[in-house]
Amino acid sequence: MAEAFESKFAQSQLTQLNAALNSGRFVSVRKLLHELPPSDVALILESSPKRTRTELWGLIDGDIHGDILEELSEEVRNGIITGMMPASVVDALEEMDTDDLAETLSSLPDEVLQDILASMDAQDRLRAEQALSYGEETAGFIMNTDTITLRPDVTVDVVLRYIRLKGDLPENTDTFYVVNRTDNLVGSVPVARLLTADPEEKVHDVMDDEAEAVPVNMPDDEVASLFERYNLLSAPVVDERNRLVGRITIDDVVDIIREDAEHSMMSMAGLDDEEDTFAPVLQSTQRRSVWLGVNLLTALMAAAVSDLFEATLSQLAVLAILNTIVPSMGGVAGNQTLTLVIRGMALGHVNESNSRWLISKELAIGFLNGVIWAVLIATVIALWKQDAMLGVIIAFAMLVNMIAAALSGATLPIIMKKLKIDPALAGSVILTTITDVVGIFAFLGTATLFLL
Amino acid sequence: MAEAFESKFAQSQLTQLNAALNSGRFVSVRKLLHELPPSDVALILESSPKRTRTELWGLIDGDIHGDILEELSEEVRNGIITGMMPASVVDALEEMDTDDLAETLSSLPDEVLQDILASMDAQDRLRAEQALSYGEETAGFIMNTDTITLRPDVTVDVVLRYIRLKGDLPENTDTFYVVNRTDNLVGSVPVARLLTADPEEKVHDVMDDEAEAVPVNMPDDEVASLFERYNLLSAPVVDERNRLVGRITIDDVVDIIREDAEHSMMSMAGLDDEEDTFAPVLQSTQRRSVWLGVNLLTALMAAAVSDLFEATLSQLAVLAILNTIVPSMGGVAGNQTLTLVIRGMALGHVNESNSRWLISKELAIGFLNGVIWAVLIATVIALWKQDAMLGVIIAFAMLVNMIAAALSGATLPIIMKKLKIDPALAGSVILTTITDVVGIFAFLGTATLFLL
Repeated sequence: MAEAFESKFAQSQLTQLNAALNSGRFVSVRKLLHELPPSDVALILESSPKRTRTELWGLIDGDIHGDILEELSEEVRNGIITGMMPASVVDALEEMDTDDLAETLSSLPDEVLQDILASMDAQDRLRAEQALSYGEETAGFIMNTDTITLRPDVTVDVVLRYIRLKGDLPENTDTFYVVNRTDNLVGSVPVARLLTADPEEKVHDVMDDEAEAVPVNMPDDEVASLFERYNLLSAPVVDERNRLVGRITIDDVVDIIREDAEHSMMSMAGLDDEEDTFAPVLQSTQRRSVWLGVNLLTALMAAAVSDLFEATLSQLAVLAILNTIVPSMGGVAGNQTLTLVIRGMALGHVNESNSRWLISKELAIGFLNGVIWAVLIATVIALWKQDAMLGVIIAFAMLVNMIAAALSGATLPIIMKKLKIDPALAGSVILTTITDVVGIFAFLGTATLFLL
Repeated sequence: MAEAFESKFAQSQLTQLNAALNSGRFVSVRKLLHELPPSDVALILESSPKRTRTELWGLIDGDIHGDILEELSEEVRNGIITGMMPASVVDALEEMDTDDLAETLSSLPDEVLQDILASMDAQDRLRAEQALSYGEETAGFIMNTDTITLRPDVTVDVVLRYIRLKGDLPENTDTFYVVNRTDNLVGSVPVARLLTADPEEKVHDVMDDEAEAVPVNMPDDEVASLFERYNLLSAPVVDERNRLVGRITIDDVVDIIREDAEHSMMSMAGLDDEEDTFAPVLQSTQRRSVWLGVNLLTALMAAAVSDLFEATLSQLAVLAILNTIVPSMGGVAGNQTLTLVIRGMALGHVNESNSRWLISKELAIGFLNGVIWAVLIATVIALWKQDAMLGVIIAFAMLVNMIAAALSGATLPIIMKKLKIDPALAGSVILTTITDVVGIFAFLGTATLFLL
């Protein structure tokens, strides 16, 4: 002990590794990689360009391949597995827990998965197929099956002797589950409770029969909310007949919480959550092009709206100069509302019973913001361009667009959720299109009416 | 047991509660609120507008005020505490763990905090001042001080008897820490290890002396990375002389992981992480106006750039119509790069040793994207406006702006981090300003040279 966690330790190790790799000192690299915990090696691989990553992987001993694979992010892991021999992959998978196995196999391209399954012996293949039998993003998918179960009618003393005989508990065991003869879950006993219980008591008397179980088909983000809300460390998983099928531990849930929270941010920029920062250029270009293509369409749509006012624009170049201000402010205000509502929905704060209230509130903010920025922009433009009427026109457009922005920002995510479209992914494009079109129409339309 | 977690349960309870509240059935409301776990009551309060929130709080028994306060988000909690009598707050705080106490007190406005400290007796005040003595966002701030410590030279049997005598372990105890006579941390014993150990063995023989401790002043986001990376459930906290001062448990770390991941998304839209979805209109308007003001300045700056080309615009209205396309594409492409780099930095993937590689990669993507969208937009514009030269000009501007976007998106967060400015907050505004200015200059400048 005594040694405190060194901050930013990966940084210096990475520099050391790169130096060793660049100067061809492969023995040092191999040694360095072996001294590190698997999660640090995973971090180093994720922080390396693809070529370096392949070189490093070649220097890592096969014994620890599995431990490192389970720490890697999906895209990086898939890249490495696709480059391995199926037989070596099978060896690496053998030591994995069921949840990591399910996660690893399910994200692989289908032909790679088939090759790997074909290289497995019958027993391993059965285990793999069982791990894959639950839907992705469900409780069954993220659970472990290495649960220790107790019978209600044995004494604590018998349990203690059994555990001592067994010698080793599955990782992160904080609770034992109690099942009856038909494997139905009847209660749970925290490990700490066994320490404080009278050895003569029966399991039945010390167990908690109030705790609740997670149904095997519950979506994993709901599981994560339960863990977060009730500060759980683990939870039993049951099938539809209330039979214990596994347990979920907090370390798997932490990954889901992180991914869910990141998902909105990445989606709002049109990126895949799993996008590897160090993916090859062509792959990244292709991935991002869909989003840019969608944006080009919306930009062309905005241009087409301006095009309707070509006559006005050709008479008054000042309108062309000011034409971007109102759409830009609408876009920013609308995105604030959108982001807030998307987060509110993710946290479970926004629901049927209060969404109408929330929309009214955002409309009120939109109106207030509209008034504030309308007055300000009118003053700036009247002074800059020495034209009071122009100031009034841009002020009117600003007010209209701020209200449109608030209305779209608040209602879009709610509507999209009902239509089962991810609001984080598509919300921001649709919103910007609305604020662009409304902003340009309001500004150039009013200008055409009053200035020509 | 047997009862599976009901999904979306808060939804139906909320509807029930609102119905009871609206029809004045306060006894039912009070009963409903008392049957729910504190975290569910907290969720209901967070999902209610301020007026309803105050009404509901008035119906909740003082005994459980503390349990609910510690589950609330900062802004909602502060609103409630500010409306309470200082003496009632002191009662509510009495039962709180040190980490929750520190969190609650530190986020209060100063005058409210002083009133509350003044209402405390000497012992409570000492405890409060100790909880507040560590810097916010450090390990000391989020740790608990209710740690059970063992001595290395006693036997497991003695420990087991001591624990049985004590009867109850602190919440989430998964590990006991071993300290010497001067309180220095020398090892740790997982609770489960005590179950499997021979009772005659000494603590010294069963303890793990390899595990590492968290220094009391480590930033909390680093603590969170450690927990995530090494799948920890708890970790001991030591002062600069390696004396054990407390422990951090995973449930506190989960909150930090969620908040850190959300921080970037909220900041990128110019929102405070703690922004309450149901805050009053005036307060929300004021909070969001800073960001809108900054955006107005950048929009005016873009307009000023267009203004330089007034002569060109007044001769060719078509330029006014197409003027928004290039800046818009640059903004989207730049924001993709920016988001990816910000996330990469948060995950610890981007650092000194690979940032140059990353910038080159993003530049290559920017160049490729530039070529792709330049060819496409040139074709569209040449066909739409029947003007090949105009197509060539917009293509050139697109290429230049895509490269500028990639360069700014990749370098801005790295530069800002060095200057200790939050890239998520200011990065996106600066980036958009750059892509607007470069885009307009490239398009209108080239057009002025070649079309007039």
